[in-house]
Amino acid sequence: MILYAADPEEWPAWRNALMALDPALELHAWEECRNPAEVDFLIVADRVPGDLSMFHRLKAVQSTWAGVNRLLQDPQLPTHVPIAKMVDAGLSASMSEYIVFHVLDRLRDGQVLRQAQEQGVWRDMKKRRPRDLPVGILGLGTLGQDVACKLVDLGFPVHGWSQSAKKLDSVACFSGRAQLPDFLKRCSILICLLPLTPDTQNIIDAALLLNVPSGAVLINAARGAHLVEADLLAALASGRLAHAILDVFREEPLPPEHPFWTHPQITVSPHVAAITRPGSGAADILENYRRACQGRPLLHQVDRGRGY
Amino acid sequence: MILYAADPEEWPAWRNALMALDPALELHAWEECRNPAEVDFLIVADRVPGDLSMFHRLKAVQSTWAGVNRLLQDPQLPTHVPIAKMVDAGLSASMSEYIVFHVLDRLRDGQVLRQAQEQGVWRDMKKRRPRDLPVGILGLGTLGQDVACKLVDLGFPVHGWSQSAKKLDSVACFSGRAQLPDFLKRCSILICLLPLTPDTQNIIDAALLLNVPSGAVLINAARGAHLVEADLLAALASGRLAHAILDVFREEPLPPEHPFWTHPQITVSPHVAAITRPGSGAADILENYRRACQGRPLLHQVDRGRGY
Repeated sequence: MILYAADPEEWPAWRNALMALDPALELHAWEECRNPAEVDFLIVADRVPGDLSMFHRLKAVQSTWAGVNRLLQDPQLPTHVPIAKMVDAGLSASMSEYIVFHVLDRLRDGQVLRQAQEQGVWRDMKKRRPRDLPVGILGLGTLGQDVACKLVDLGFPVHGWSQSAKKLDSVACFSGRAQLPDFLKRCSILICLLPLTPDTQNIIDAALLLNVPSGAVLINAARGAHLVEADLLAALASGRLAHAILDVFREEPLPPEHPFWTHPQITVSPHVAAITRPGSGAADILENYRRACQGRPLLHQVDRGRGY
Repeated sequence: MILYAADPEEWPAWRNALMALDPALELHAWEECRNPAEVDFLIVADRVPGDLSMFHRLKAVQSTWAGVNRLLQDPQLPTHVPIAKMVDAGLSASMSEYIVFHVLDRLRDGQVLRQAQEQGVWRDMKKRRPRDLPVGILGLGTLGQDVACKLVDLGFPVHGWSQSAKKLDSVACFSGRAQLPDFLKRCSILICLLPLTPDTQNIIDAALLLNVPSGAVLINAARGAHLVEADLLAALASGRLAHAILDVFREEPLPPEHPFWTHPQITVSPHVAAITRPGSGAADILENYRRACQGRPLLHQVDRGRGY
């Protein structure tokens, strides 16, 4: 039996999507669970919904999120049960929309044009081409690769950095800490799409930002804990960075008194970059349920050692 | 001999690009012209730079602009000389950037998010997918086709309308005045990329806007004279249109007292959507120079009857 314990608002959409694929499925919401001993497979968001010790038969936990760092930190998460993260086309597509949108906003001087309209000024704009605005992507997983492709298609020079070496068409790939400075110096726009692990926590700090070209732009759409907030403010003040676009924060919702809200060089969005569209990963979830019942490895199974 | 009489600021870039292709080229700027009788080929922007009657040998006029409506209206333009418009990949790419940027801004509620940041509010946003936001393109020439491809790639349902029937992959094509209402009712975002001709002047009027779905968005990146300004204001007031993004205006620069500047439902940009990048059309210009010298038809030769 599958028990759904992710976002209650999305329950109808997930139920419809899963039942459409297999009408015979035994599927219940957390509140409807009468017999915990019959639960084989648990669907969660980014945290454990309660005491899991009653699920004696539990074979796997499936997250509806791509980032499972918070889930893995939960002491209630059973250590012997495999965990799968969500990797779905809808999620990658929505992340790419967000990144492409903000990269184009920068290329086409959206902020300058909006200010010009507020002032009623017809401004002669400088002509900048994508090829004059090299971008760099920290993290070349499913999300990073999709974003890289879409930016290459638009004519941007794209560089990528990942912990282990990767090879992608039309993307200059760098890997490992040793190659990080060489990567960073090429990035007029630096995009963070890394998984959050002990290795990548606080990776965007003063030392890293010293390597980007003066006047670069940072986009963080991964996790708030990748970024050392004080170091970002210092880099904006010194001119090392011209602007930062942040979708994720150490504390969410971002507290009302936080200086990011009113900083003229920071664009804040409320963790909306990548949206798991309810239902769009249903086929993978169903496949994982079957694999869990058969004791086979899951699709997108989390490596607890690496943390993603 | 080629005489350059387009934007003086762009002269160095055009000279470098053309001379790189053929170092033996005889090429001069308008101010340097010593012997008008030796001019075979004239490069202009959107208007005739002065008296052309002295160029007895003139074989062709090449515009660096895609839209030649203003050039064709110039009474000084000799009627017996063929005219070529600029169709270059850089121009299409920059138009597509502008359109994709504004379509994504709408999809991802850019305006709502910017206001939320101003108010310091962490807003829970509704989840909208490209497939729920059908777009329609008026005009399926070089620019319209490039924009259509890029929007299809991002997952938007794309419809197109042109005067004469066209066929494009993954785009639902409509043509002729009779099919216009059927096309319009499918467009949550309506994008105008038509050439400006007597047939298309004032095409976006109250009657046309009656056919779009309530709450639609208009993007006009073609010419100001396509749009009846009073009818747009009425459609915004009635809720027929939710928003308009305008890059072109009947009078440019848009006069400081014009109501568009301060209208909360209108985004104004100063005719920056498509930029001819100096040099990026140099190969076509050189080819047209050779064709003109040989008396052959030009690439992208303007049909004066159709007006584009």
